[in-house]
Amino acid sequence: MSGKSIHKFFAPKSVAIVGASDNPKKFGHVILKNYMDMGFSGKIYPVNPKVDSILGIKCYKSVLDIREDVDSAVIVVPPQVANEALKECVKKGIEAVVMITAGYRETGGAGVAREQELKSIIRDSKTRVVGPNCIGIYDSFGRIDTLFLPDYKLKRPRAGDIAFISQSGAFALSILDWAATEEIGISRFVSYGNRCDVDEIELLNYLSEDKKTKAIAVYLEGVRNGRDFLECLKKVAAKKPVVILKAGKSKAGTRAVQSHTGSLAGSYEVFRGAIRQGGAVEAENTEELFDFCRVLAYQPAAKGKRIAVVTNGGGFGVMCADSIERCGLCLSEFSKDTVENIRDVMPKEYSSVHNPLDLIGDADVRRFDVAINNVIKDKNVDGIIIVTLLQTASLGPEIVDVIASANERSRKPIVVSASGGEYTQLLLRSLEKDGIPAYPSPDRAVCAMKTLIEYSER
Amino acid sequence: MSGKSIHKFFAPKSVAIVGASDNPKKFGHVILKNYMDMGFSGKIYPVNPKVDSILGIKCYKSVLDIREDVDSAVIVVPPQVANEALKECVKKGIEAVVMITAGYRETGGAGVAREQELKSIIRDSKTRVVGPNCIGIYDSFGRIDTLFLPDYKLKRPRAGDIAFISQSGAFALSILDWAATEEIGISRFVSYGNRCDVDEIELLNYLSEDKKTKAIAVYLEGVRNGRDFLECLKKVAAKKPVVILKAGKSKAGTRAVQSHTGSLAGSYEVFRGAIRQGGAVEAENTEELFDFCRVLAYQPAAKGKRIAVVTNGGGFGVMCADSIERCGLCLSEFSKDTVENIRDVMPKEYSSVHNPLDLIGDADVRRFDVAINNVIKDKNVDGIIIVTLLQTASLGPEIVDVIASANERSRKPIVVSASGGEYTQLLLRSLEKDGIPAYPSPDRAVCAMKTLIEYSER
Repeated sequence: MSGKSIHKFFAPKSVAIVGASDNPKKFGHVILKNYMDMGFSGKIYPVNPKVDSILGIKCYKSVLDIREDVDSAVIVVPPQVANEALKECVKKGIEAVVMITAGYRETGGAGVAREQELKSIIRDSKTRVVGPNCIGIYDSFGRIDTLFLPDYKLKRPRAGDIAFISQSGAFALSILDWAATEEIGISRFVSYGNRCDVDEIELLNYLSEDKKTKAIAVYLEGVRNGRDFLECLKKVAAKKPVVILKAGKSKAGTRAVQSHTGSLAGSYEVFRGAIRQGGAVEAENTEELFDFCRVLAYQPAAKGKRIAVVTNGGGFGVMCADSIERCGLCLSEFSKDTVENIRDVMPKEYSSVHNPLDLIGDADVRRFDVAINNVIKDKNVDGIIIVTLLQTASLGPEIVDVIASANERSRKPIVVSASGGEYTQLLLRSLEKDGIPAYPSPDRAVCAMKTLIEYSER
Repeated sequence: MSGKSIHKFFAPKSVAIVGASDNPKKFGHVILKNYMDMGFSGKIYPVNPKVDSILGIKCYKSVLDIREDVDSAVIVVPPQVANEALKECVKKGIEAVVMITAGYRETGGAGVAREQELKSIIRDSKTRVVGPNCIGIYDSFGRIDTLFLPDYKLKRPRAGDIAFISQSGAFALSILDWAATEEIGISRFVSYGNRCDVDEIELLNYLSEDKKTKAIAVYLEGVRNGRDFLECLKKVAAKKPVVILKAGKSKAGTRAVQSHTGSLAGSYEVFRGAIRQGGAVEAENTEELFDFCRVLAYQPAAKGKRIAVVTNGGGFGVMCADSIERCGLCLSEFSKDTVENIRDVMPKEYSSVHNPLDLIGDADVRRFDVAINNVIKDKNVDGIIIVTLLQTASLGPEIVDVIASANERSRKPIVVSASGGEYTQLLLRSLEKDGIPAYPSPDRAVCAMKTLIEYSER
């Protein structure tokens, strides 16, 4: 790890695309276009000795031909010439270089020597490298996009609160694409590939200070130095939530890690201990990684584990109660006021107000409004899980506004669950944008709430 | 339980909609329209004393005014007049009556007496009742649709292999809607509400003989008689897979069940024992209910637990290996032939062919084709998990055809996982239609495979 800043990776005033191409199929074309489509506010310099201009922008034969200072570069030329390109970036004094190019340590043989050479090129320079063999950076705020796949294959997520760093590029691609569809907002994303220079420790430190980032999602196969990583986690997790998905936990997985990123996965037990000791949260699978990040990023801490469940689907209430007990949480006893106020808006034949609160199948938006606001106020309630059945005839889409405005006023955490098709998913995504984590099943909503409560108790 | 057949619920030659309405907001209108939109092939008789015709169809004042024989009826009038309507159905000799009307036992008080009366009305008659207080029947093949919600709120699933019965109407609505979006095919669906006559035992027996149904999904809160249920399960599960999601497992959940469907949830331990002894499969949550049903309905039995993982995303391969070990399955050792044939289509610098098989980021459809077909042939492989990263530049959508045609030829089970946004989900749904269960994460694919293997070992 170097003491040099990595700030320029996220806020460069200019970028050189080394290997920019006029062939739309080439990565160097897609990346140049990405920067333009993102509305990158700085200067863009395509670099390619064979053409004069690409997409209407003047092209340079080398970064050394650019007169102005250049803050950052993306290198996307073949491996045989990539180190030469990097040398020129060093000479030009470019501080932040993303090396997309593959064909380094991961291929063995000549690649290993090539990576050694790469390291010696940047040694004692002010140039930092993310990569090689990576998909690079996607930054919603810095408007940076080195992901070399077109939009129709890989949707880009909206700007948001969650930073994501990943040792695997392929995994990250699929998750970003998924996050885009789910309207999960991403602040900054970095795939750091072979990790020859910038590593997860520096990235975590940087993101811990980043004002745009409220929680950090991490996919890891192995770390360089366990002790350094633990020290870093302690510092970072004290500032904001860090959720880690560790791959390579089993014997079979550990072997697979060696042939994937060439990392040593190390002992999972030791790693798991470090995550806990460091104050981070562990995700068991891909769903949990973002289920947990979302609730930790959006919702306030819980003061206890007494949960109110509000639903218009009795069966969902039952399943929620099962999950709550299984997770070691408990259902709150509603106060007398809550019970009375809610009874006022229920049909006469309604038997009794209790938790899980079944507003029954003909519940409308008003009934939800009264119920939600009463349980929020109830001193016996520490957190609220709203399980909506959005398909019923009586419940209009305005339920989204009711939940969003309750969430605005509430100092207690709220999570939502709703299962269904396109209409339901549309409304869930709307909640997501309003900062209410919305899950496709009650079980996942309860697990998220449990994680938030455990995190609040640290 | 009665000895009388429930066949007419699923294959009626005619239906009377008692409470049909010309007001598009009324359930009686929606249901009439559903039957018309489904292309119900029999005769439809709207029944409403106040109008002459609805949607261009002649309307009757009572079922007794219909001259022809009537096989089935849907009753959707207010509770105060529902039993009278049922009496007329009995008098008319209608064998299958779906009572949508609520306001029976579930409301207590007068509703309890009303339900007692309902039971005495059909006693000693040839009339059977599904409900009351239910959403009724959706039958893709019989073209029956009593779900009283318009299509824009509740999508209808395509015709397919999985039957679904549910004690909770609300839960079922959201699942049907979700299944429609996911292109999961449903053969017959029944929500039986208060279960005053037709119950899960009769439905399971009927579905076990149904040629359109390959697996049965069940949502249950409690059963009437545990011993009868166990005997039924033994018979039915011997014929086709039954997957059960039991709600009301915990103390809190059990209490919630009592106020939801008024059932006694009973001891979960006893129930769980019955599921196992009966040869059914238990689902822990809503995702598992259909994750398991799909693999059991579509895929052949596994002869062992040696799994081949084929992927173009190294990180996904690692996570799959972790899940496989955690689930007690194992990664197969590929035979020499498999290794050689696959090496032939890999880039030269590729290090070694092993399991999980990482076809790396530039894999195209042909590389997948060779790999999949070789692992299918390999004597050391019992099941195949294909984890595709569909976002890469080199992998075209034809991968769907390659997997589908391999699946046609294979006598070994195949499941697929792919994570991503709209493009990925589109391709996953295409696989689903071809009978390949496709999951949004490697973890869920592995759990499904594990369930199939355990089921095959029974």
